[in-house]
Amino acid sequence: MTSIQMIEAAQQRIGNRALRTPLLNSPFLDEIAGRRVYVKPECLQRTGSFKFRGAWSAISALEPQLRQNGVIAFSSGNHAQGVALAARLHGISAVIVMPSDAPQVKIDNTRAYGAEVVLYDRETEDRDALGASIAAERGLTLIRPFDDPQVIAGQGTVGLEIAEQAQEEGVGKADVLVCCGGGGLTAGVALALEARAPNLRVRPAEPEGFDDTARSLKSGRFERNARLGGSLCDAIITPEPGRITFPINSRLCGPGLVVSDEEAMRAVALAFSCLKIVVEPGGAVALAAALFRAPDIEGDAVIAVCTGGNVDAALFCEALGQHAG
Amino acid sequence: MTSIQMIEAAQQRIGNRALRTPLLNSPFLDEIAGRRVYVKPECLQRTGSFKFRGAWSAISALEPQLRQNGVIAFSSGNHAQGVALAARLHGISAVIVMPSDAPQVKIDNTRAYGAEVVLYDRETEDRDALGASIAAERGLTLIRPFDDPQVIAGQGTVGLEIAEQAQEEGVGKADVLVCCGGGGLTAGVALALEARAPNLRVRPAEPEGFDDTARSLKSGRFERNARLGGSLCDAIITPEPGRITFPINSRLCGPGLVVSDEEAMRAVALAFSCLKIVVEPGGAVALAAALFRAPDIEGDAVIAVCTGGNVDAALFCEALGQHAG
Repeated sequence: MTSIQMIEAAQQRIGNRALRTPLLNSPFLDEIAGRRVYVKPECLQRTGSFKFRGAWSAISALEPQLRQNGVIAFSSGNHAQGVALAARLHGISAVIVMPSDAPQVKIDNTRAYGAEVVLYDRETEDRDALGASIAAERGLTLIRPFDDPQVIAGQGTVGLEIAEQAQEEGVGKADVLVCCGGGGLTAGVALALEARAPNLRVRPAEPEGFDDTARSLKSGRFERNARLGGSLCDAIITPEPGRITFPINSRLCGPGLVVSDEEAMRAVALAFSCLKIVVEPGGAVALAAALFRAPDIEGDAVIAVCTGGNVDAALFCEALGQHAG
Repeated sequence: MTSIQMIEAAQQRIGNRALRTPLLNSPFLDEIAGRRVYVKPECLQRTGSFKFRGAWSAISALEPQLRQNGVIAFSSGNHAQGVALAARLHGISAVIVMPSDAPQVKIDNTRAYGAEVVLYDRETEDRDALGASIAAERGLTLIRPFDDPQVIAGQGTVGLEIAEQAQEEGVGKADVLVCCGGGGLTAGVALALEARAPNLRVRPAEPEGFDDTARSLKSGRFERNARLGGSLCDAIITPEPGRITFPINSRLCGPGLVVSDEEAMRAVALAFSCLKIVVEPGGAVALAAALFRAPDIEGDAVIAVCTGGNVDAALFCEALGQHAG
């Protein structure tokens, strides 16, 4: 179970290897939202998403001899890149298991960060069995994307920074909107703010049709998504809330917010024109909620975490073509 | 004449109203350049460029009664937006004189930051006479874009931050590449680094055909550009080096670096894919020089200031379409 002490220890272990992302603001976004909007741009984080923090935290917390054997992860997205770079900077090997139909650019990037990519066929191969056999053979440790106390602790460092930065900006009571997939970042930030800035309330933001956490928070039990694909917000899609993350989020978070793909794309375009940052659609759902769900949000200010920026040029320009003035 | 004390005083006056931009890095850029590449993303600064710093510095340094009368500036670009927002945050009025054929988005943005925009016809009206008559009538103070000691002091705060951040990163000796128009940022950063980090040497970066500062540094006298337009890097085009800035740059800077428009566009695309920031072509010439002029640069590391991000979606997507993988 992740504690504030574990989050502080993760921050110590990460040191200046992760970027302390700034808190951005634009009067144009304030005007749209009708309140002051702050953006925590984790798209600027190393490897283009917050995932680097959790990966570093988990790898650096391993017992040294175990760590030397290397790590393994299942991911075709931001977690893959975070684990790959964190492993390389630790001087250890990383195996990333990816579906063979993953976008070539993601495979290439993960390799460029120094990982060995093992591809499997979604139709004919069992990913977990394949991964387990590689892990056993080489003595690799599995780094989970969210359901791991040290991963949650690493993501919680975002919350420590938000607590400090909100105080510097004079923000008292506010909602902190976090793009939510498995809920690791949401849980980490919520735990950090519970200890350091209890006036800041975390609320998960999700894409329409993939609002498992919002529905689970409402019903009090694990709700699943009907579909597993078909959203532009692919970076933050999971079948259901995490077994470790959900109890934390259930205790600490306010109601979830849900936005459409089209609203996420508008937020991508507004982040381009007003903040000069590159955000992927899944990483923009919290900003979209801050801008387009104003009546459902309380307080004079809102803080939105933009979780990632690993978006293809074609999709990014589609968002700008549709929505940039 | 701007001194390190004036730069420190400007930093005090600015406080947390300007963003302390982080120092970004990507292993992919390091690989292209063959050395460690650090980027200071002033595109993330308020109003999308470093110009906000100089504008704030100059306005906040005015004698209060004079300041209350308001300010005036001539600019169709980043200086206009910087002055407009700095004036609004001071609670004073700003008049920005712009050519009537300036892009509508720039006129709109300047107005949205609260300034009164006065348009003039380039063919039939004399901008300076028009501005002087408005200024005299209303008692407005002219805020110059670069040839002003307090503006240079404000831009110098970028250098104070670079000195601290380079030390945190363990950078010893390195070239600091600065996109150079009139030379205000170049001069401010050079003065700050002379005092705080003398191992960091500033070098101006300019677009081909508009390398007045590079040629002037070489010849030791004021060299003019043959043309005044026709570059994608319009944000940093001036007829010749500034009368106040050039003597500073001549004393402190290393040789200038020159890149093509095409190289600037490649740097825009690489900043998108590797750093997740939005940079305008003129704001990317220093990064382009860091990446594509490696043999002309000394040291294990190089620091490039990305000066602005106010680019139209169409031009940005042109850069991505040509150069993003």
